[in-house]
Amino acid sequence: MINNLDSEEIQQLLQSARVGRLGCVVNGDPYVVPINYEFRDGAIYGHSLPGLKISALRDNPRACVQVDKIESDLRWQSALAFGNFEELKDEAQRQEALTRLLAKYPLLTPVEWSMVQDADNQDVIVFRINIDRMTGVAWS
Amino acid sequence: MINNLDSEEIQQLLQSARVGRLGCVVNGDPYVVPINYEFRDGAIYGHSLPGLKISALRDNPRACVQVDKIESDLRWQSALAFGNFEELKDEAQRQEALTRLLAKYPLLTPVEWSMVQDADNQDVIVFRINIDRMTGVAWS
Repeated sequence: MINNLDSEEIQQLLQSARVGRLGCVVNGDPYVVPINYEFRDGAIYGHSLPGLKISALRDNPRACVQVDKIESDLRWQSALAFGNFEELKDEAQRQEALTRLLAKYPLLTPVEWSMVQDADNQDVIVFRINIDRMTGVAWS
Repeated sequence: MINNLDSEEIQQLLQSARVGRLGCVVNGDPYVVPINYEFRDGAIYGHSLPGLKISALRDNPRACVQVDKIESDLRWQSALAFGNFEELKDEAQRQEALTRLLAKYPLLTPVEWSMVQDADNQDVIVFRINIDRMTGVAWS
């Protein structure tokens, strides 16, 4: 049976999943990449090196993040959060978001660690998706 | 270090992954859902009940399927296959695709099994994404 997840269940899934799939539109094509993220205060925080995805999101900020918990082909949950991409440019906000991401994912690369130590390093993009809609389903 | 995957490596990843994330555009928003699929002859075969995703893909057939193998935060591969959605309407093609999907995912639901036994049951949509471009990266 498929059932809709309620808002509480969707938020729990966003809290517990470790990898999300970020969807956006690049040159008219749908585009999906795995991301590490932190879900906090109605937003999904992430970071990225500059590239195709970031350029596309600057042009068209609509994005979604899909997360799931797949226990078997017959038992899974999937949630989808939609929102607008916002680049964090305020240095205090960037530092906080990045520090929290690194606390959740301590194995992330030296690039990010050096970024935390050097507030002037602008290479790493720190962003959030400000969620305006969420949906979720469970199959069990 | 991030490296691009070559075509052979991308195809291996598409062969070995068990869950893909299908990306499409629904009402202007990017949209991502997990799918079971079979990769064969340059296409990704899947099935679905009718709904939002299928309606959207009928309107705008551009789609992508993202697959990954995540061993740790520091060691992963991700590939992305782009192509056009095509609904399989020829009954022999539908049956073949569905039978192969059910062979790969034997736990799928009675709805699909009844579909295989009843060629007239048109409720289940069987489709393929005809791949025209693939990209892939590995972080290690």
